[in-house]
Amino acid sequence: MRFEADVFFEFSKKLPTEAVESLTEFLEDANNSFLKKGVPEGKENEGTTIEEYQIQPEGVFLNLNSGRYVRAHTGIMRLNKELSTFLGKKYQLGVRRIEIQRFEITMELEEAPLEPMTLPFTDKIDFTGNQAHIILNPKDIDETALKKNYIDKLLNRMEEKIRTQSMGGKAAFSETVRRSEKKLDKYRIKIDPTEQAVGRGWVKEFPGAGVWTIMPPFTALIRAIEQLVIDKIIKPMGFVETIFPRLIPLEVERKKGQLAIPNELFWVCPPTSRNPKDFEEYVDYVEITGTTNPEMLQKMLRPPMFGLSYAQCEPFYEIFQKEIVDIDDLENNPIKFFDRNGPTWRWEGGGLKGLERLNEFHRIEFTYMSSPKKTIDIRDEILERSEKIINDIFDLEYRIDKTTAVYLEHAGATEKDETEEFVKTYDLTAILPFETASRPEAELEISSYHVHTDFYAGRFNFKDKANRDVWTGCVGIGPSRWAYVFVIRHGFDFEKWPNEIKKYIGDELPRTPQLVTWPKK
Amino acid sequence: MRFEADVFFEFSKKLPTEAVESLTEFLEDANNSFLKKGVPEGKENEGTTIEEYQIQPEGVFLNLNSGRYVRAHTGIMRLNKELSTFLGKKYQLGVRRIEIQRFEITMELEEAPLEPMTLPFTDKIDFTGNQAHIILNPKDIDETALKKNYIDKLLNRMEEKIRTQSMGGKAAFSETVRRSEKKLDKYRIKIDPTEQAVGRGWVKEFPGAGVWTIMPPFTALIRAIEQLVIDKIIKPMGFVETIFPRLIPLEVERKKGQLAIPNELFWVCPPTSRNPKDFEEYVDYVEITGTTNPEMLQKMLRPPMFGLSYAQCEPFYEIFQKEIVDIDDLENNPIKFFDRNGPTWRWEGGGLKGLERLNEFHRIEFTYMSSPKKTIDIRDEILERSEKIINDIFDLEYRIDKTTAVYLEHAGATEKDETEEFVKTYDLTAILPFETASRPEAELEISSYHVHTDFYAGRFNFKDKANRDVWTGCVGIGPSRWAYVFVIRHGFDFEKWPNEIKKYIGDELPRTPQLVTWPKK
Repeated sequence: MRFEADVFFEFSKKLPTEAVESLTEFLEDANNSFLKKGVPEGKENEGTTIEEYQIQPEGVFLNLNSGRYVRAHTGIMRLNKELSTFLGKKYQLGVRRIEIQRFEITMELEEAPLEPMTLPFTDKIDFTGNQAHIILNPKDIDETALKKNYIDKLLNRMEEKIRTQSMGGKAAFSETVRRSEKKLDKYRIKIDPTEQAVGRGWVKEFPGAGVWTIMPPFTALIRAIEQLVIDKIIKPMGFVETIFPRLIPLEVERKKGQLAIPNELFWVCPPTSRNPKDFEEYVDYVEITGTTNPEMLQKMLRPPMFGLSYAQCEPFYEIFQKEIVDIDDLENNPIKFFDRNGPTWRWEGGGLKGLERLNEFHRIEFTYMSSPKKTIDIRDEILERSEKIINDIFDLEYRIDKTTAVYLEHAGATEKDETEEFVKTYDLTAILPFETASRPEAELEISSYHVHTDFYAGRFNFKDKANRDVWTGCVGIGPSRWAYVFVIRHGFDFEKWPNEIKKYIGDELPRTPQLVTWPKK
Repeated sequence: MRFEADVFFEFSKKLPTEAVESLTEFLEDANNSFLKKGVPEGKENEGTTIEEYQIQPEGVFLNLNSGRYVRAHTGIMRLNKELSTFLGKKYQLGVRRIEIQRFEITMELEEAPLEPMTLPFTDKIDFTGNQAHIILNPKDIDETALKKNYIDKLLNRMEEKIRTQSMGGKAAFSETVRRSEKKLDKYRIKIDPTEQAVGRGWVKEFPGAGVWTIMPPFTALIRAIEQLVIDKIIKPMGFVETIFPRLIPLEVERKKGQLAIPNELFWVCPPTSRNPKDFEEYVDYVEITGTTNPEMLQKMLRPPMFGLSYAQCEPFYEIFQKEIVDIDDLENNPIKFFDRNGPTWRWEGGGLKGLERLNEFHRIEFTYMSSPKKTIDIRDEILERSEKIINDIFDLEYRIDKTTAVYLEHAGATEKDETEEFVKTYDLTAILPFETASRPEAELEISSYHVHTDFYAGRFNFKDKANRDVWTGCVGIGPSRWAYVFVIRHGFDFEKWPNEIKKYIGDELPRTPQLVTWPKK
């Protein structure tokens, strides 16, 4: 790994002639002092070395070269500091500006990339076998880029993209750990129930595809399932309710990892102003034409300020941002919150047809924090209790898979250590007697169970007072998806539903009012 | 009211010379036939008259003049139809294009405007006393504009804007109908409780201003209030739960009237594509720099597709879009739905400080439909039951005002008939012992109670099978706002809360976990 840079340090005023000699000394000395500080013995040529220099009255030009320790960009920052101190003390002048004129990197890769790639801040990226040669765009490498270490992050990002290329998707890591007995012959409905649900007025389609108004009978079922989850999982396990926001600021989505999949979220833009006068032209247009003109409205919006909550658990980690916890407390009393504060959203595209996959959907989100062992235990107990509901009460055929955690991929991290002894994610999948409208699969994932290790403690910067591991986890159970598979198994006839569900609803199912023209049957 | 237009009807091919005479006859005849059809007797000069014409091989030029019946633009559409039939039958040619070359309108106004205004589709608008002179932009007046009657809608819009100017805001119509006894001396908290709520860890501020994470104790209070409303209003009155969407398509917001206040809504934009490759540059940028760059993300978003639900009741009217109801049924069994499916949103700006006014907040929304009398009765009963809770259980000092319905203003309609014998809107306002952080008022509106008459039946195009009046109404009760005023009256000490609330929570209030660094007290 080699870094080569041409840099010009511009002085705040002209260097006096008598200073040239001592500056020369300073630079010669740098090669054996602060530009090598921290480099392991015997690896001196991996630190930064000034190969050439040219002292001018306006500034000093340097050609730098380094290996992996005290990389050239770190060397530049150290030079900036030491040079400023040296010149300031002796000659009352400083470094006004650092101008990177050339910056090239050559590095060996763990594996050769499968295809070319682009990266920001670069002019050129060449791959020859396992070797990468990167020419940065010198104009992009300003002091912010140096201070915030964009260069190392850029190299990490490059390696990550190469790994992603070679690993492909998530499917590779998925493996079934257990299956229920076969039960498809018991299912009362053998085809997608969406059409029947519409016909019976259990739902009514909203003009936005993948968004439905849920009418009284289906609402009652969803609320009954929510209540069942409260009685069978939430109460016995001591989860406490919180109300999590749904407008997630971009910075929180970034830390959560959601900015790595902007193609899957809805983005929320406030208007440019609160003054109605500024929108008069648009309102006039709408009132006169009776049309909505989204393009005209778009011009009056600010850049996105929020993502619409995608994971539902985003606010959980933000609560602890920069806080310190005591893992002894959390070992005895793990933090266990749940949120059922309305829908969350995923942009699944405009062509959604069935009730199984929605742009707006409902989920009970469990979030927890404790020691590693306790975090795994909590996750496992929620899974066990869910499985009992799905097997005993819902009486569904299902499968449980262990898989790479999606959140890790989203956060831009990929599985490095496959040998860890616990499972990070379980998915619970209901088996269906038909292929769904959205995917060519006769099945539907209905909940997932995660342990994040200390991943979010790192991303959101919270820690134990004695630096012991702080682990988190989350589980999402979707009552609207559970209601969908429940209806497939038990049908639309309330009388035939299991008592464990009926008892939450009462003697009869609330009805959708019968209009002259709707529901049709 | 006079309309004057110069129009050129372009033929689809050259007019044969022998046709000139019969076309002349056709035009002369038009002035006494279809251009006057429907005009009341004695008002003939209020219909359209062809003042001049010039027949050319490529088309015919007309100068038209009209009053208020068969207005010039209507005359143009009639001419287009009749001319096409006449030319088609006799000479196998048609009208290829209508080109408006000039269109001017002079009209008397009910009242003179207070200030100048702009309107789309116009080149110039002059007001002289009570007279308006409008020159349309001829390029804007295409066939769509003629067919969809933009011209009349433009005049309506102008008159509406004049009325709005002279009426000013909503306050003018507000009038107090009753007040509770004085109770401020009973209030346990005399200052804005936000800081204390933060200090105790009842809420935690989310980085987006006006959006909070609600922690276990405050969540428990909000849910208790929700349960109280269910027991005291929802169940005894027979309201049935539905789950209303929160992503409201632009067209539904238009019909609801929300597009008339784009400055108060959040707008939702999906990404331009579902393909992660299209966002690679943005994701690279985010991962390398650790910043969110909203401007770069904005370039990859579609125009807004949805508004974030503002009124909560938008989906109610859309359910009935184009449906036919039987008002006899609805007289006996009014439709009574409620929704508590998560938050709704208003863009109150970025500077919100207190818990009383939020960009994201919670509300139980009641929606109902019936005959006029029944609709008013339902609204009045919800008000009465709310008042009982606020007076007897919450024990607050409050005021009830009658006021112009905000929804009517939003929908672009303004109060025309002040003499109607019922009240369209009541507001319930809690009196506070301090001025809130968001407004210089020692009070807070905590719910509002509406009757819409047949306004939404018209906007959403639903009707009774025998064309009898179909009325709707809605009520919004905000448990998070009710919780805010409850805490001011009863304080943070659970032991001192009224039993009617405590019974929904249990022996003690759920606690926010105590971390090393938070909550502070």
